[in-house]
Amino acid sequence: MDNCLFCKIAKGEIPSYKVYEDDEFLAFLDVFPATKGHILVIPKKHYRWTYDVPEFGNYWEVARKLGLQTMKALDAKWMNFLTHGGIEHAHIHVMPRYEEDIAKANPSPPQQQVSKEELMELQKKITAQK
Amino acid sequence: MDNCLFCKIAKGEIPSYKVYEDDEFLAFLDVFPATKGHILVIPKKHYRWTYDVPEFGNYWEVARKLGLQTMKALDAKWMNFLTHGGIEHAHIHVMPRYEEDIAKANPSPPQQQVSKEELMELQKKITAQK
Repeated sequence: MDNCLFCKIAKGEIPSYKVYEDDEFLAFLDVFPATKGHILVIPKKHYRWTYDVPEFGNYWEVARKLGLQTMKALDAKWMNFLTHGGIEHAHIHVMPRYEEDIAKANPSPPQQQVSKEELMELQKKITAQK
Repeated sequence: MDNCLFCKIAKGEIPSYKVYEDDEFLAFLDVFPATKGHILVIPKKHYRWTYDVPEFGNYWEVARKLGLQTMKALDAKWMNFLTHGGIEHAHIHVMPRYEEDIAKANPSPPQQQVSKEELMELQKKITAQK
């Protein structure tokens, strides 16, 4: 897909705050995070929807692994997952959460602008976490 | 878990508009649907979070299968997945979607009250779909 933002990120043509990569999947920080440490997990190959990805179960296993690592790195209390489809390349939102009152927490908080320095610091913490 | 609503549904102690069941997982209509055909997929055994479920990849494969079946049954255009945690038994929200403008669609629409007749009709359509 020539004009796909996430294909360009997967190919390294557009830089990203990468936190994980294997042969099939790539994970990076959302530059407009809804929560601190908000990660997007994408297949490197272009698929329109998460449910079009043939290795769907493995795809979610990657999201879980990254999410648990990020929770630990950032002292999050829980995390939630979301898929939508505004950008037309499959992506799973992994959102570390910090609220005590889960029932009142917004499942899809508004996205915010944060500094490059903050994103770099988060990337460092997450990738350093074992 | 003695007082867990979803454990009671899994054991059949509380009725549900069931659309799928296997040895490990159960899926039923949300009685306060956010979208038409909104389904909850749960592990029968009690886990606090979706990411605590050992067979996490298989769990999502069940959600995909049910979601695709429901999309077909109800002529949905796409679907989105969401996990949160207001009820303390792991559950995946599968939401069939009908909007053309995906970018403007609310990832987590408000829940609505619908009639028993409507839920029964949806259950019938979804389970009849192959």
